[in-house]
Amino acid sequence: MTFKYNQVFVEDAATIAGPYEAMGPLKKYFDQTFDNLYHGEKSWETAEAKILEDSIRTLLKKTKKKKEDIDVIISGDLMNQITSSCYSSEKFNFPFLGIYSACATSVEGMILGSSLIDGGKVNRAIASTSSHNMSSEKQFRNPTEYGAPKPKTATFTATGGASILLTNENTGIKVESSTIGKIIDYEQNDPFNMGAVMAPAAADTIHRHLMDLNRTLDYYDLILTGDLGTYGKEILIDFMKTEYGLDISRNYNDCGTMLYDLEKQKEVQAGGSGPVCSALVNYSVVLELLKKKKIKKVLLVATGALFSPTFVYQHENILSIAHAISLEVIK
Amino acid sequence: MTFKYNQVFVEDAATIAGPYEAMGPLKKYFDQTFDNLYHGEKSWETAEAKILEDSIRTLLKKTKKKKEDIDVIISGDLMNQITSSCYSSEKFNFPFLGIYSACATSVEGMILGSSLIDGGKVNRAIASTSSHNMSSEKQFRNPTEYGAPKPKTATFTATGGASILLTNENTGIKVESSTIGKIIDYEQNDPFNMGAVMAPAAADTIHRHLMDLNRTLDYYDLILTGDLGTYGKEILIDFMKTEYGLDISRNYNDCGTMLYDLEKQKEVQAGGSGPVCSALVNYSVVLELLKKKKIKKVLLVATGALFSPTFVYQHENILSIAHAISLEVIK
Repeated sequence: MTFKYNQVFVEDAATIAGPYEAMGPLKKYFDQTFDNLYHGEKSWETAEAKILEDSIRTLLKKTKKKKEDIDVIISGDLMNQITSSCYSSEKFNFPFLGIYSACATSVEGMILGSSLIDGGKVNRAIASTSSHNMSSEKQFRNPTEYGAPKPKTATFTATGGASILLTNENTGIKVESSTIGKIIDYEQNDPFNMGAVMAPAAADTIHRHLMDLNRTLDYYDLILTGDLGTYGKEILIDFMKTEYGLDISRNYNDCGTMLYDLEKQKEVQAGGSGPVCSALVNYSVVLELLKKKKIKKVLLVATGALFSPTFVYQHENILSIAHAISLEVIK
Repeated sequence: MTFKYNQVFVEDAATIAGPYEAMGPLKKYFDQTFDNLYHGEKSWETAEAKILEDSIRTLLKKTKKKKEDIDVIISGDLMNQITSSCYSSEKFNFPFLGIYSACATSVEGMILGSSLIDGGKVNRAIASTSSHNMSSEKQFRNPTEYGAPKPKTATFTATGGASILLTNENTGIKVESSTIGKIIDYEQNDPFNMGAVMAPAAADTIHRHLMDLNRTLDYYDLILTGDLGTYGKEILIDFMKTEYGLDISRNYNDCGTMLYDLEKQKEVQAGGSGPVCSALVNYSVVLELLKKKKIKKVLLVATGALFSPTFVYQHENILSIAHAISLEVIK
């Protein structure tokens, strides 16, 4: 399902990044970084909620908005049951809509916020997401064996919080169109190869987006997938070529391969993942490139593996989804 | 955040209910019931996904729609991570938006579907939800001690799947307005007294709804909360009186107290809960009353306890939320 927007804009965004992310190449673009995964809290779970809360607080400060200026927050994260989103949003007394598309959550939030604004229902919406390396490892891969090696296709859940403010006031950066993803079952079942799980979903959404809007790949200055990682990125490039005859390699990159220095930070293996991974990249350096008009048209394709440990134990496949949204500089 | 809709209608709904629900007073209003909690599947989790799938399939059949006629499905449930919604929706190749507001999920889905339709983004949207007594007990209260008594304030997670089709074509039953809930922390922390957790959220949303639209309680023929149960219902009536000076007892009921025969079905204690509880009531008997014009204006207030076992273990409060939507017979 693809549709365009008439009157929705990005006001600004805020990114709070963890210690591993601060060691990567994007450090200077983040609003804040922190050194300790506990972030002053007693548990990883409350730390994640605090980090997300910090990103919302920073966004309000940057945009000089009061709590009452925000009509709705749309937020989701990996923690059962989007707990980080609930506990952080409660602090602000915002009307709240909880969402979940795994690591595609950030773009789902932008689509829903933009739709509410464009339909005249609200004036301003925040879309938020977070993830935390330790709360994710504990929840999804417990018991995490000490020193157990992971395969090279494994990705590394990013730690951070990211929030974006969407508005009906013209800021020069327009939310132009979006494509809601379909759930894809490509018969993958390796939780250490999420790139392979998600690449077919990214391909399906990018292809439908282009077909629905009658566009070619070169319409965009940049197409960014969420967190496929190095192997998933290669799979997507191959898949687009063989399945649709499209060469996306020219103007394409993957946020999971951009967040860390893959040469030096060997612990991240194939790259970053988690819902905040693509949001940390998109809401920092990508937004900066748009503000400076170094790129004018970008397609953000957040990719999510709809991963349930219970279903994997029961030998079910891991499903995936990708949502896309395009941003354009208009003045 | 309260807003009205111009051109959104309920086409129809489908309800699939489990064995305990089939023993209750609403059996004749459900489209299907089943006897065995496994529902032909090997696990409770895949059973829940199958039940939700059945509700979508039944809805398509009842409304004579093909898969391609549906622009988007908006679905959520309690299972980590809304797995039932993901695995059931995958079968239909629909564009998918995952949501989560615990037991307030059904109305969140209706709000988002209605907003997408009213904003002209889509023509038809399905909002779906499910819950399953056993998959919930296993996930939230494991280990469930054999024969251990529960306090009388405990509620019973309903088993079933429910889906509603929203459309921009005039069917006579209009989606009139809605209020997005705020997250409420009333410093409750007893997972066996969800009625007390959720009642303040219901009160806040009902009060804001009335204030925002300048309405009195008697505007509605019926106001229905989601799943407060017998004790939560009494708390809400008291709370509305003492906090806002409003007597809601005249035209108010709670779906959790309506789904079962509380006199005979002692195992359900204070009543039904789970996201499908209010949906099973609203999409069956309430929709039937609207179709027959026995009631003309109804406010559905789904109530959710944003319950995370991890956060409860860490001595955090249980947060809650309530979303409201009003339906009106217009011809």
